[in-house]
Amino acid sequence: MSPASTISERSPLDRLRDEMERPPYHGFLRPRPERVDDATGAVTITLPFRPEFRRAPDAPGYHGGVIAGLIDLAAHAAVAVRVGRMVPTIDLRIDYLRVALDGDLSATASVRRTGRTLAVSDVEITDSEARLVALGRGLFSTAPPAS
Amino acid sequence: MSPASTISERSPLDRLRDEMERPPYHGFLRPRPERVDDATGAVTITLPFRPEFRRAPDAPGYHGGVIAGLIDLAAHAAVAVRVGRMVPTIDLRIDYLRVALDGDLSATASVRRTGRTLAVSDVEITDSEARLVALGRGLFSTAPPAS
Amino acid sequence: MSPASTISERSPLDRLRDEMERPPYHGFLRPRPERVDDATGAVTITLPFRPEFRRAPDAPGYHGGVIAGLIDLAAHAAVAVRVGRMVPTIDLRIDYLRVALDGDLSATASVRRTGRTLAVSDVEITDSEARLVALGRGLFSTAPPAS
Amino acid sequence: MSPASTISERSPLDRLRDEMERPPYHGFLRPRPERVDDATGAVTITLPFRPEFRRAPDAPGYHGGVIAGLIDLAAHAAVAVRVGRMVPTIDLRIDYLRVALDGDLSATASVRRTGRTLAVSDVEITDSEARLVALGRGLFSTAPPAS
Repeated sequence: MSPASTISERSPLDRLRDEMERPPYHGFLRPRPERVDDATGAVTITLPFRPEFRRAPDAPGYHGGVIAGLIDLAAHAAVAVRVGRMVPTIDLRIDYLRVALDGDLSATASVRRTGRTLAVSDVEITDSEARLVALGRGLFSTAPPAS
Repeated sequence: MSPASTISERSPLDRLRDEMERPPYHGFLRPRPERVDDATGAVTITLPFRPEFRRAPDAPGYHGGVIAGLIDLAAHAAVAVRVGRMVPTIDLRIDYLRVALDGDLSATASVRRTGRTLAVSDVEITDSEARLVALGRGLFSTAPPAS
Repeated sequence: MSPASTISERSPLDRLRDEMERPPYHGFLRPRPERVDDATGAVTITLPFRPEFRRAPDAPGYHGGVIAGLIDLAAHAAVAVRVGRMVPTIDLRIDYLRVALDGDLSATASVRRTGRTLAVSDVEITDSEARLVALGRGLFSTAPPAS
Repeated sequence: MSPASTISERSPLDRLRDEMERPPYHGFLRPRPERVDDATGAVTITLPFRPEFRRAPDAPGYHGGVIAGLIDLAAHAAVAVRVGRMVPTIDLRIDYLRVALDGDLSATASVRRTGRTLAVSDVEITDSEARLVALGRGLFSTAPPAS
């Protein structure tokens, strides 16, 4: 029951939950990791709706910057679970397919390729009625930090 | 001295400042429009640093999602100033060139092409030492809202 | 046996094969449509290898421009099959995941979203050993041509 | 007057011209380097029009894949001139702003950032009437080849 063995017994989802709470920016977004798929490594993260996420004060709909932030952190999470550490984002592509109305969003991120220095991760964002509202693709640096 | 004439006398920068305060999400980011270039229409927006923008609690550096949000709203602002109304984001690409350390960021956005239905806008983000830290390119819908 | 009924009896794959032969540029690439999935509408196109596709005279490997061309035409084909006419490309994103060595390539394209004015199509390129070598995403204009 | 010193006296434009002739794919496109800017390193490349570049046999206009190929090779050239060797393309984004009608195209590529492992290059494509027809942004690997 040493701390080390306790830590090693924790699941990828438990570790992701810890990691997801660390960034101060996540104190604003409050993303909630739901699942790490054992077979594929795909990560699912919920973003509970809050009025602060809106683009207009008097009409429903998420601001594009909130969706971009969710895509960045979900794509990052899938790569980080795979390689076991934080990985800097190199670039990010977001396609807004539909207006994301008020309601929780769900982001599912999958690693498409991991190499010695780079990884590509794909994200799908669905709204509370399971409609696809945005697609994202991010490139991350997997090179070990310079020592 | 009718309200209408008062409104029409307001500068593009004044109008941008009003628009920039409306989105609830901007209550978190607090972007500050600084300039609308008369000749080119380029828009410059400052993002004053706050610790909530960090990606790590114990190290300097902006979260990628904050920079993505700044790029989205700056690119949007340049197109909105040009066409005179809000324009939905269709897609966005962000290139993170350097870690953006703590300190205010400056975003300069320029419209590269405006058509009847689409506009492309480019954004450069510099840090407080005027180093280029990120590039963005966004596509926006300029089609008039369906009546 | 009228020409019209003959045409209407032709399969989506037959029509795609005809369309794919029209662009003069395809006389260089020589893409070969293999399949239009009845259920999903996904389109599969083979690019038979030719030495003219190489980036170097003395080493195996496709030029990135050839892969970009294959992604453009495959993404376009999936949207064109769906909407029934040619659709201009608005933007294109390509991720090169591995060097594509000599050998036939296979492109599979799926429409992710079709709207009144825009469509998004995803492409995966695999090499002759079924390894994923590139990903593409394209945005197309589905607005009816101005009359 | 050794061969080595002769080589070292050749200009960046001369060297680029040599490099540009090597890829077999360029035997199809036939790009013509025009200029390497001493101050900025920007590279200008002409693509002389040929009917094989068309997307339709009976109407003017370049195929998107040809423009994508020109953007890839021009962005690459700007980085290769800077770092002194071939650099693999990691990803590419192309925005098609206007139909590129028949006529020579001109591509100007500039390096926006070069690091130890990555470089970002921007490309503008203009048509024979100097109208901006496409924008490109590419990411390249500048890491030295593994020995």
